[in-house]
Amino acid sequence: MLQFTDIETAAARLQGVAHRTPVLTSRTLDALLDAQVLCKAENLQRMGAFKFRGGYNAVRSLTDAERARGVVAFSSGNHAQAVALAAQLHGCKATIVMPNDAPALKLAATRGYGAEVVLYDRYKEDRAAIAARLVDEQGANLIPPFDDLRVMAGQGTAALELIQDAGPLDALIVCAGGGGFLSGCAVAAKHLLPGVRVYGAEPEAGNDMQQSLRQGRIVSIDVPRTICDGQQTQAVGKHPFEVIRALVTDVLTVPDRVVVEAMRFAFERMKVVLEPSGACALAALMHHRDQFRGQRVGITFSGANIGADRFAALVSGAEAVD
Amino acid sequence: MLQFTDIETAAARLQGVAHRTPVLTSRTLDALLDAQVLCKAENLQRMGAFKFRGGYNAVRSLTDAERARGVVAFSSGNHAQAVALAAQLHGCKATIVMPNDAPALKLAATRGYGAEVVLYDRYKEDRAAIAARLVDEQGANLIPPFDDLRVMAGQGTAALELIQDAGPLDALIVCAGGGGFLSGCAVAAKHLLPGVRVYGAEPEAGNDMQQSLRQGRIVSIDVPRTICDGQQTQAVGKHPFEVIRALVTDVLTVPDRVVVEAMRFAFERMKVVLEPSGACALAALMHHRDQFRGQRVGITFSGANIGADRFAALVSGAEAVD
Repeated sequence: MLQFTDIETAAARLQGVAHRTPVLTSRTLDALLDAQVLCKAENLQRMGAFKFRGGYNAVRSLTDAERARGVVAFSSGNHAQAVALAAQLHGCKATIVMPNDAPALKLAATRGYGAEVVLYDRYKEDRAAIAARLVDEQGANLIPPFDDLRVMAGQGTAALELIQDAGPLDALIVCAGGGGFLSGCAVAAKHLLPGVRVYGAEPEAGNDMQQSLRQGRIVSIDVPRTICDGQQTQAVGKHPFEVIRALVTDVLTVPDRVVVEAMRFAFERMKVVLEPSGACALAALMHHRDQFRGQRVGITFSGANIGADRFAALVSGAEAVD
Repeated sequence: MLQFTDIETAAARLQGVAHRTPVLTSRTLDALLDAQVLCKAENLQRMGAFKFRGGYNAVRSLTDAERARGVVAFSSGNHAQAVALAAQLHGCKATIVMPNDAPALKLAATRGYGAEVVLYDRYKEDRAAIAARLVDEQGANLIPPFDDLRVMAGQGTAALELIQDAGPLDALIVCAGGGGFLSGCAVAAKHLLPGVRVYGAEPEAGNDMQQSLRQGRIVSIDVPRTICDGQQTQAVGKHPFEVIRALVTDVLTVPDRVVVEAMRFAFERMKVVLEPSGACALAALMHHRDQFRGQRVGITFSGANIGADRFAALVSGAEAVD
């Protein structure tokens, strides 16, 4: 199981490489929720999301000989950019397997970090098999998006910094997809603050982690329909779940319309950009505010990779949301 | 004329009250413009704009007896909120004269800081006369938006901090309306870095300051049609102009469509919100990039008070822009 020392090691590796992102606060938010809210602004992290932490730590963990054979990842989201940037910073080759209908912006960003992009047809081909073939052929190292102790340790450094900078918390809410971020943050938070309650936040339509935690076993679901594209995982990873079942109090779910409200709040009152999944923890706190009144609550602003046009469509209602 | 010591005094007053806003950088921006760009993020300042600095310094400059009689301002924009918040922090009364068709959000924000709002009909009544009457009747202190040494000194602390935190600059670009921000920043910058070139940035449609600087006298224009609502002043103030004609190299103008491009860039690549006037310096740098290649350029992100719906309308093209 992931240990706090793994997170300390990751923190030392990330020092001076990852941004030590600020902890944002808002008097308006505190008044609205009757709580003291500390927001870890990973939306301002390099490549626009916390994923850089885990990707970098994983690439850094390889030996020089391993890195010389390159790294491989499959992702259409922030993990792709994280691994591409981490590889670039190490001067090693990255190959990212992405669907051929991935947004042009994301393809361009991944290539912009110097990665080779291998496209596949998401309706006919199996991306894991393609990645496995690359690993076999090139001897390259697969960097999984969440079910990996090195990745989890990197993500956990966000909670470590939050608590170092913001002090004691009664509760911590972390957005949850495959569980890499939540599990890393849970290990860091419970080590530093044994009494803290740690919550995951996920979209209502994709509540596999809530089901898994409540049933005590990993539950798989169909790909959920939600605007939170960073949380369309079908099941929590095995390594993250080992931590989550031990340390996490509960998983809070939110409807997509509250996620849009949270994105609007962050824009209008805190002057920062959040992508839908990046706003999920704030949305969860807003939606379940009665559980947190009078408390000091840490939340993650986990990512900001959304185009202005998509943001405009969501807040204007041009793109309908449940 | 405004002196550097006035700015140092203002800086001491603002210590621990105003946010020491971060200096944001973007590798993408630097690559795009072939320059090193240091962005003073006053969009993350209290009440969402640099205006807090000048408003607070002016209210702080009053004697206790003066403050006890309250303060008055006329503004439909960020200066209203700045004076309201500054008064609230001093426990004194603020009366803000605002047009009766001001956006509900701005009225609510000003009242939210505890100010009394006096509405007037902008087509039939003279706001300066209304404010003068309040000053007469109540013995209250008028806090002008820009033509005031206390206000100018407060605004100049932004450039002081930028240079303290970012180091030497070849050039500094400051958005300009009535000239309070530009003049304060020019005095700070030229004192600390005598060789720095200081530029104003204003919308093409409202280039009164460019005309004034080039003609060596204050030129007045009709209220300009521009999305940059913080820069719809008709003429630079007398006190600011005294500084500007002495210290400012030139005033750069930008079309509104480039302002929208700059807002989009800040959103998508730097993950922060800028209102149109807040993006004017970035837009000016983008539009006149050839003048700044290979240089270290400081710019102001001066405000972020724009609703998500208006932002959506501007970036989607639903609101047409010249």
